Amino acid sequence: MIGQEQLDDAIEHGRAQPLAFGDLEYARLLEPIAGYPRGSVVLPGGAVLPGYPSIARIQSLEAGLPRTFTGAFWAEEKIDGFNVRILCRDGEVYAFSRGGFVCAFSTDRATEFFDPAVFEAEPDLVLCAEIAGPDTPYLEGSPPQIREDVELFVFDMMRLGQTEFLPQAEKFALLERHHLPSAPLHGRFAPDDLEALGALIRQLDDAGVEGLVLKTEVGNHRAKYVTGSSCIADIRVCAEQLLDLSPEYFTHRLTRLAVFLAEHPPRDTAAVERELGQALLVGLGDAVNKSRQVGRVSHRYRCRFRQRENVRRFREHMETTGGRHVRFVEGTPRREGDYWVLEFERLFDHMTGTLSSALAGDRQFD
Amino acid sequence: MIGQEQLDDAIEHGRAQPLAFGDLEYARLLEPIAGYPRGSVVLPGGAVLPGYPSIARIQSLEAGLPRTFTGAFWAEEKIDGFNVRILCRDGEVYAFSRGGFVCAFSTDRATEFFDPAVFEAEPDLVLCAEIAGPDTPYLEGSPPQIREDVELFVFDMMRLGQTEFLPQAEKFALLERHHLPSAPLHGRFAPDDLEALGALIRQLDDAGVEGLVLKTEVGNHRAKYVTGSSCIADIRVCAEQLLDLSPEYFTHRLTRLAVFLAEHPPRDTAAVERELGQALLVGLGDAVNKSRQVGRVSHRYRCRFRQRENVRRFREHMETTGGRHVRFVEGTPRREGDYWVLEFERLFDHMTGTLSSALAGDRQFD
Repeated sequence: MIGQEQLDDAIEHGRAQPLAFGDLEYARLLEPIAGYPRGSVVLPGGAVLPGYPSIARIQSLEAGLPRTFTGAFWAEEKIDGFNVRILCRDGEVYAFSRGGFVCAFSTDRATEFFDPAVFEAEPDLVLCAEIAGPDTPYLEGSPPQIREDVELFVFDMMRLGQTEFLPQAEKFALLERHHLPSAPLHGRFAPDDLEALGALIRQLDDAGVEGLVLKTEVGNHRAKYVTGSSCIADIRVCAEQLLDLSPEYFTHRLTRLAVFLAEHPPRDTAAVERELGQALLVGLGDAVNKSRQVGRVSHRYRCRFRQRENVRRFREHMETTGGRHVRFVEGTPRREGDYWVLEFERLFDHMTGTLSSALAGDRQFD
Repeated sequence: MIGQEQLDDAIEHGRAQPLAFGDLEYARLLEPIAGYPRGSVVLPGGAVLPGYPSIARIQSLEAGLPRTFTGAFWAEEKIDGFNVRILCRDGEVYAFSRGGFVCAFSTDRATEFFDPAVFEAEPDLVLCAEIAGPDTPYLEGSPPQIREDVELFVFDMMRLGQTEFLPQAEKFALLERHHLPSAPLHGRFAPDDLEALGALIRQLDDAGVEGLVLKTEVGNHRAKYVTGSSCIADIRVCAEQLLDLSPEYFTHRLTRLAVFLAEHPPRDTAAVERELGQALLVGLGDAVNKSRQVGRVSHRYRCRFRQRENVRRFREHMETTGGRHVRFVEGTPRREGDYWVLEFERLFDHMTGTLSSALAGDRQFD
């Protein structure tokens, strides 16, 4: 609970931001308050949706497992999507982004993927889920197994006000009882099950899976470990933004890939080298072609909504907060079946400027 | 000329730095003064060695040539080394770095590559030269055609006090008359000789040459244009410093490579992709191995000197100015034939720290 007086004080001092979505008035925390991390959400009456905590990364299984875990842990598939926390208030389901905003897109679509009756049985339940697929408004990449649109995968549960996740046993029981879609579970391991975990991660690497999240039975003690192929996939989908993303986006993934390959030497080194080179050069080549053909480098996003009102809310949110340059495509949202399809472009200003200058034959001093 | 009073004033205001090398007292300009750029050197009596100007880069031959040149220009080979300006004072030959320091290494070795009698005939002559090869104290890479040690290539000439380069005809005559080693000359072209220049650059690309510097007959109007293979070579030799170099080192070369490939589509795209991936992964893999084996990531440099005194001066210079972490190898300099061989390591602190933490299994939040 965060009381009204404490919340008013936080808002006044810029530590919380009051917001509304339809009839729901709420505030997101910009800084930790009363033991709740930033990204937590204060609901009417003072109930708190805790922020989703950062998960520590390990880069070496061999060295990292014994340093991270003293006993058994579960290995769950890490899905390459975006993280939402879903709850129900006054009969309405809302999905909150990591930062603590109601996400109009996720809120619009979430209940397509599970029966909201789960919240009648468990009114204070929070579903932590990943939304992934080719048609999200936030991501350029998608897990290879999701062919179209988006899917939703529940991977953690919380209860309002409690920063600790539900124990795994309780989560598994609720997933089953309410037929909730969940992230694939790959088993239970001990810190010295290096061989089995190594074999699993190499199999996931081959399948193009992002990686694993390792979780103790109880509590918030976790670690994530990603595959080499996911590092290459991330580089591939973002190569055309090379000069617009933080350079660490690329250097960290390259370093992680090198550590992964040292721990899991590939059967065909030349194939991995070529995949990495291709990941960079295909995206950059596309950027050069876009610059030549339309004079700008951008990525086109497409996503669909049930309710037109949510398209409006989504656009409004992008326009007020969207740091990067967004251009909505004319003629959208357009009706397709039961959906409103929205398309928009994110413009990559540095790539656009640098390539346009290079291709125009400008003389550059560097 | 820069008079003593003007120089004293510049030194007092931190715009020039007084220095000495053996008996030579000089000052280097930290800012432009009296029309001379930063990196210029004021010699005893006020004579000025002009700084070597930045050369503009073009990234597209097709668009860049007509925008840069209105008439004929020479195409000279760009050598992948470091730039020195060489002159003679009171019978002693000195080589100055781009920043305006006497370079102890280059000064020690320069006269092995040409007869200093050129300065008896031309006392105010300045030779602008590239020193390249596997055994330089500054560079990780080397042109493939230089098998060992270093070589020196004169590519421009100036006269003391004059910021304009000697006309090409005069330079060619002096190169010939004094048997000076020079950067290969690839001919004279017109701005519309796109086909011939394209064929030349593709041939240089295949040979692993860095690129071309294009120069008008008279004046300082130049442009440089580099090959795709030199972008990959630069990435290869510096991949093990990925987190220590500025990220732009990598992102600029990747962008340049993509523009080069768009203008000169390779015969074998897959081969170029693999070369790029290999350039990154071999260097990064070496870094991981070094971290595992010796706990630090570094590059070992080896260079040889004629005079032991110059080794001392070089070390002193590295110790006072060398931003990056340098460790001289014990037992060097050691005598080998007529030379003193010095070896030292440059430590890559970010790579060392990041890999050591990753391989130790640390949990990282990013």
